[in-house]
Order: sequence, then C-alpha cells, then structure tokens
Amino acid sequence: MTLLADGVDTPAPLGGPSALCDALGMQLGIIGGTGPAGRGLAVRAALAGHEVVIGSRDAERAAGVAAEIVGRHPHHSLAISGAANEDAATAALVVVATPWEGAVVTAKGLAEALEGKVVVSMVNALMKEGREMLPLYPPRGSMAAQLAAALPGSWLAAAFHHLPARDMEDLDSGIEADVLVCGDHPEAKAEVGALIDTIDGLRSIDAGSLAQASPIEAFTAVCITINIRHKAHSTLRLAGI
Amino acid sequence: MTLLADGVDTPAPLGGPSALCDALGMQLGIIGGTGPAGRGLAVRAALAGHEVVIGSRDAERAAGVAAEIVGRHPHHSLAISGAANEDAATAALVVVATPWEGAVVTAKGLAEALEGKVVVSMVNALMKEGREMLPLYPPRGSMAAQLAAALPGSWLAAAFHHLPARDMEDLDSGIEADVLVCGDHPEAKAEVGALIDTIDGLRSIDAGSLAQASPIEAFTAVCITINIRHKAHSTLRLAGI
Repeated sequence: MTLLADGVDTPAPLGGPSALCDALGMQLGIIGGTGPAGRGLAVRAALAGHEVVIGSRDAERAAGVAAEIVGRHPHHSLAISGAANEDAATAALVVVATPWEGAVVTAKGLAEALEGKVVVSMVNALMKEGREMLPLYPPRGSMAAQLAAALPGSWLAAAFHHLPARDMEDLDSGIEADVLVCGDHPEAKAEVGALIDTIDGLRSIDAGSLAQASPIEAFTAVCITINIRHKAHSTLRLAGI
Repeated sequence: MTLLADGVDTPAPLGGPSALCDALGMQLGIIGGTGPAGRGLAVRAALAGHEVVIGSRDAERAAGVAAEIVGRHPHHSLAISGAANEDAATAALVVVATPWEGAVVTAKGLAEALEGKVVVSMVNALMKEGREMLPLYPPRGSMAAQLAAALPGSWLAAAFHHLPARDMEDLDSGIEADVLVCGDHPEAKAEVGALIDTIDGLRSIDAGSLAQASPIEAFTAVCITINIRHKAHSTLRLAGI
C-alpha cells in the first residue's frame, strides 16, 4: 500500500508507464459490455484507435455483439472483439458497464484479474417510474463506492455516466459532451481522463473524489428524464471551464 | 384540492392569470435573499424588469443589502427593495433562498402567506469537506420535498440550483446557463420557466417531477467542486435540446 500526500491508503502502484502509456492504442476491457452503454463506449473507443474487448457472462454472445458492431461500420476499422468477462478483465484498463444489480457480484468474481489495475465504474443505480428515471442511492452512496469496496486492490474511478448510449453507438451522430471523472486516486483519474480525451467529441473533467460519484450517478436520472420528456438526446456540457 | 389527470392531489388553484400574467414585471419575493444565491437572482430578475423584494429575518439588514445592490449598479434601474421575510412572502411568486438548515422552519412560519402560491426552492443541503462540497440527502430526498411537505397549500417547484452566485450578481459577467425546473405541478413549473426565460442568458428546462429535485440538488455539490478544483465559474448547459 502507498500513502498519498493526503493520507489516503491506496492499492499497490500501477504496473508502470508501459502498461497504459499515453493512452494511445490502449487495451480496454468492458465488463458487461453488450448493453447499450458498453456498446456505445466500445464503438467510440475503437474509433479512437483503442483495442476493445467486450465482456459478457456469455462469451459467444459477446463475440456476436462485437461482430455485429464491427459489421455495422464497414468503412471503419474497429478493433472490437467479444469474450467472457474473465478475459475482458485482463485488459490494461477495465470499465464496468453491467446493470447495477449484478455489478458488485460480477466484479468480486473478477477481483484477482483486476488487482493493481484502473477500474472505471460507469454503473448507475436507477429505477423507472412512468416516464421518469429516478436515482437509487446505494448504501455506500454510489455504485462506484460499492465497487471500490468490492475491489480493494484496484484503482477505482467513475466516469461515462451522462452519455446518451444510442448517440455514442451511432457514429453518424456528432456527439459533444463533457465526461465527469471522479475517484480517490489521481493517477487513475489521469489514465481515464487521457482515454476520454482521445475520443472525438468527448472532454474529460476532473470532478473530485469518489464521494462525487453519488451525485454524478444520481444526476443520470435527470439527464434521462429530460431526454424522455423533451424527446431529445441531450448531452451535458459545462460552459466557462 | 384539484385532481390533475395523473392523480396527484394539488393545492387550491392559482389566483388566475392576472396574478402572474406573462411573467413580465412579475413581483418576486426572495425569502432569505441576502445571501449570495438570493442576491444573484435578485439582480438578474430586476434587470429583466421584475420587482424584487429581498427578504430577511432582519428587515433593516435586507433594506441595507437591497440599497447596496442598487447602488452598485448606477447605470441600471433595478427595482430591488428589502423587507422582513413576512413581507417578501406576500409577493406573487416567492423563492426560498435561505441556508438549508433553517429553510423548513422559516417556510412553516410563512405558510399562511404562501398558501395558493407558487413557491420555488433553490435550497441545497451541502457540506464542505476540504476542497469539496458534498451533498446531504434530506429524509424526503430533497430540500424541495422537505419544503413541499412543510407547505401543503403551496405549489412547490425547484430551480436555480446550479447557477454560480457571484457571476449572477456581477452584471459585467456574461452568463449562459440552463436552469433545470422540476415539480409536481405543471402550472407552477410553467410560471417559473416563464420567469427564467425573461432573464438574459438563462434558459429554463422542464426536468420532470419533484422527485428529480434530489439528484438536481445533489449535483450542485459536483458543480461547486469542479469550480473549486479548476478555479472556474462554470455553468451547466445541455447540448442537443
């Protein structure tokens, strides 16, 4: 364990600069990546030149989804493959994109593969009520905090919550969005921020500690509700920064 | 009580279109209006031609703050006066801008004056921890819900949470921000939206029911934390809507 200047205990240091380098051509695993959120990130990250492994409990299903995505974009060379979550978890940087109900149990089962690694939670605990989405507040405040507790050997960050999944997956739709990144490990946030900034139309913003994951995740409910109500595909922007 | 189509019990109907009309030259009372958030709204609303009464527990203090604000803008004719909260509560539309700790008790004391009226909560329950703001979740989910319960005869809406107070008060700073409005009464939201849309640089967005006030209020912590961390005065914008 390393002790940072601010007194926070951290997991073992990252594997060194060679692991993630300058975020060019990064290897990205997306646990539970066959859903809309995971697929959207996979497409945009692959378009930026990263090698993406979509993970699923069902490796065949993941391979099918990956092939379908690649086939839908014949004019782009997208390095997207599908695999079991266990294999996606061996990537240099891993994003958890499962439905919230299964996120912690899934992550715990992968804890060993995720040790010493940056893990990004894009999980939102939400419920639908009529034409609105409402936030659920997990006992530790956020799904990211639940995952951080489940993966004490990993470097948890949270990001990608407010992106409209369909627009992410549709390369014909221009997307201009700010992506809020929070976490307790500056190095992990820097890695995630570097990844985000390689993706066209996305800008990373350091939004503070992992405590901010609670309001960031919850605000996803507002973004989706506004889009339902206004039949829009709006994205979050912060002006003046 | 009126029963809306969606089965929500509502307070007595609003006083009729004459009360607030088309939001031009509206009379606006700001309970607890001497703080930064209230002052910022007062200046921008007065600049838009509305008559603003800044309320305080201490009428003299309110009058002093109002005179100071008006004096600081000699080239504008701003109709801002100061009064006791009881007098501010007699305005056609009333905004609650007190610190969160006193909001419910203050509002309860004004319940009679606020009956049958649109009341807008801009209250955020936040705590500071080092260089971050963190959201506190009130037992009913939001301060707006706490106020709605305290004022069963009023039409509660929530708005104005994410605006940077100093930029609101400084007329030399251009401000471009989306203001999320939520509430259970469509008429109340429409009145608040109309008010917002008269203010230069602000755009109102209907963000759904009062349940959305919980994540909207909480997200204020993220906005402030980002501004502290990046030494910025950022504002929230939604692109694509």
